[in-house]
Amino acid sequence: MVNPMVEIRVVSMLSVAEYRSRVLSHVQVAPAVELPLRGAVGRVLAEPLVSAVDLPGFDNSAMDGYAVRAGDVADAGEQTPVFLPVQADIAAGSRERVSLAAGTAMRIMTGAAMPQGADAVVQLEHTDGGVDRVRVDMPVAVGRHVRRRGEDVRAGEVVVPAGRVLGARELALGAAAGCVSAWVYPLPKVLILSTGDELVPLGQVPGFGEVVDSNGVMLEALLGSWGIESVHISGVKDTVEEVLGAIDRGVAQGCSVVISTGGVSMGAYDAVKAALADRGVRFEKVAMMPGKPQGFGRLALEDVEAGVPVFTLPGNPVSAYVSFCVFVLPALQAMAGAEPCGVPVEVVQVVGQCPQPRDRTQFVRVRLERDGAGCAVATVLPGQGSHMLQALADADGLMEIPAVSDGGAVGVSTYRCLVLMDARLGGQV
Amino acid sequence: MVNPMVEIRVVSMLSVAEYRSRVLSHVQVAPAVELPLRGAVGRVLAEPLVSAVDLPGFDNSAMDGYAVRAGDVADAGEQTPVFLPVQADIAAGSRERVSLAAGTAMRIMTGAAMPQGADAVVQLEHTDGGVDRVRVDMPVAVGRHVRRRGEDVRAGEVVVPAGRVLGARELALGAAAGCVSAWVYPLPKVLILSTGDELVPLGQVPGFGEVVDSNGVMLEALLGSWGIESVHISGVKDTVEEVLGAIDRGVAQGCSVVISTGGVSMGAYDAVKAALADRGVRFEKVAMMPGKPQGFGRLALEDVEAGVPVFTLPGNPVSAYVSFCVFVLPALQAMAGAEPCGVPVEVVQVVGQCPQPRDRTQFVRVRLERDGAGCAVATVLPGQGSHMLQALADADGLMEIPAVSDGGAVGVSTYRCLVLMDARLGGQV
Repeated sequence: MVNPMVEIRVVSMLSVAEYRSRVLSHVQVAPAVELPLRGAVGRVLAEPLVSAVDLPGFDNSAMDGYAVRAGDVADAGEQTPVFLPVQADIAAGSRERVSLAAGTAMRIMTGAAMPQGADAVVQLEHTDGGVDRVRVDMPVAVGRHVRRRGEDVRAGEVVVPAGRVLGARELALGAAAGCVSAWVYPLPKVLILSTGDELVPLGQVPGFGEVVDSNGVMLEALLGSWGIESVHISGVKDTVEEVLGAIDRGVAQGCSVVISTGGVSMGAYDAVKAALADRGVRFEKVAMMPGKPQGFGRLALEDVEAGVPVFTLPGNPVSAYVSFCVFVLPALQAMAGAEPCGVPVEVVQVVGQCPQPRDRTQFVRVRLERDGAGCAVATVLPGQGSHMLQALADADGLMEIPAVSDGGAVGVSTYRCLVLMDARLGGQV
Repeated sequence: MVNPMVEIRVVSMLSVAEYRSRVLSHVQVAPAVELPLRGAVGRVLAEPLVSAVDLPGFDNSAMDGYAVRAGDVADAGEQTPVFLPVQADIAAGSRERVSLAAGTAMRIMTGAAMPQGADAVVQLEHTDGGVDRVRVDMPVAVGRHVRRRGEDVRAGEVVVPAGRVLGARELALGAAAGCVSAWVYPLPKVLILSTGDELVPLGQVPGFGEVVDSNGVMLEALLGSWGIESVHISGVKDTVEEVLGAIDRGVAQGCSVVISTGGVSMGAYDAVKAALADRGVRFEKVAMMPGKPQGFGRLALEDVEAGVPVFTLPGNPVSAYVSFCVFVLPALQAMAGAEPCGVPVEVVQVVGQCPQPRDRTQFVRVRLERDGAGCAVATVLPGQGSHMLQALADADGLMEIPAVSDGGAVGVSTYRCLVLMDARLGGQV
């Protein structure tokens, strides 16, 4: 398929912020689903987790030692030990409800239920550890080493609010609180399409004119690091039929979001553009570098009334990476009910020459360091071309130099810098 | 099984740093393995990735446009356009080697190989987009919009050094560089043992004396967030036979590290201690709160000459969590060849009362905020008991208040605080 390269007029470019807003205005949070608690890890809660029980569920001992009535050992001391008969042992997990007679003690293990009538625990270290009779060398205050029923959580209380990501700690609390399932926003399954006649799969030596499909594995790993499952179809040839056929196959495998790379520029063979422009995807030029040619829309499909969100990223690997960070990830987070995460670092000193021109927002690959005063210093890495992977792999951050048209002043050297870190959606355990 | 509670003498406690050093001195990095590149994601490189190819692999166009000899369009201008016959189209992925005759042009797509003889690309926007004949409105410098073979990477160069975690960007670069596999340090498969007669599994309503096994799901999710696979055996009863049997089952399933919770205190039913004390695991008291009773060692097993590293954590959930962060995670990172990660935040203001006593290092669950000057302020959460999960789930950080015996001065209010974040091993994409 050879198209004429018609789109030659200068089209005014959208700013990064305008384009991101447009993308975000077309995605919405997915309907909540109920998942078993363990299977909901990494998702955002749509409904709060409410405790079904008191925590602790019963008064219990915080120590290995002896349950007593504090009054019975009030006069105990090193020189004046008190001896109490040991009525019984209470192990953690014992379901028996026992009562402590006045003037006696029971051996009790950490976590075991306090006997009725006892009001304190003497720590093992302050006794002789006796089995039939115990010698107590110290007095103990009422309530000492006793964990009270409900002192952590009361039945009916919210333990984890809606909007929070279910991490390891939330999961532990929810499990302890008797929650069995959780209403969460599901994570989408994503179809990754690597398009381009020049692509050869990972593992094949590229010949003259060919390149290895590195975008596919990159996006797969990026999505995976956020806990998002993906299907990767590589080597999609530059024809409308191949592109549409691959999307159909991915949707049939349960994908509800499509990310493609390549085929969106002004070339005569840009099949992604040709395939999707009439089907709900809008192609734009965004005033950014790398990543100018972008496309987004809801692809109309027979079986999916609302359409499937499609992100068409440029084919250059650095452009694809930056586009993912700046547009796709915020959209996926919005669909999953998560707040955008990652606090940008304020860079106060830049070492090296920033790429030009200033009519587009530059996302510069930098190394980050702290100077003596703790301020962030960014060193611009050599090799800022949108095809140059070495600097991308070596970078600690993407420093954002706003276009002059987008509020960026020339001569300023304080910039926001997105720190590149691995993190799951929402990011806390 | 009822043991006498004999260990009553006051044993001097190890400091957190001493105990961590001891643990780390007994673990070593696992022997490197060769994995397919995609399967190696998240692991640390044992050998550098070396490029098999030049990147780019051939001179190619950075733009959609026309390959020309710059000299042929030196006089082009809006008022003085130059017209060149278009000899051919060169698509990305074309394997044909073509030559450009003087005084002619070829349509060329982004990423397509430059024809021999051409030395620059005129951007589509500066032409009329002609198919048979092209009008060029601007001169172009030699080398303009041409990506030179090898300008990013030369064949034989190290593209990712040993010691780096293979994240999405390293993977993309390695793939582009023709790497098919990588020598990496494997991640261990971990056996999680939840011990205690009082435990009921997630999903069962706990009765009097019982608690839900929240430690198991917590550790499973924590390990999972670091990309580490685990096998969880819950409800291991407090007998030596049950503990040893569960370990055998886990090792048979391929686990090479054991993490247990519970059964390590001074109680008469502490089966983990009873089972492992004679088998290479050393039980200690560490001057920390929560998390005093710790055990670590290499468990001698018939089939495993070097023994299997075993971490026996306390059963209280907050103690287990803190112990994991402070001792287990650094050990797992060392085994995986990774640097300890996470930069602690320096807290300069503490709101609320810190738990006592100062003879043990306190790991306090706090909320973190920044004040107007950007300094970290920690608010101590209510409910600091080692059994209290609500504050743990709500915390942003673990603030470390060193024991006086461990160098901590009384009256100081600047503390290190471990920020609780989800991250995979090594942590960068």
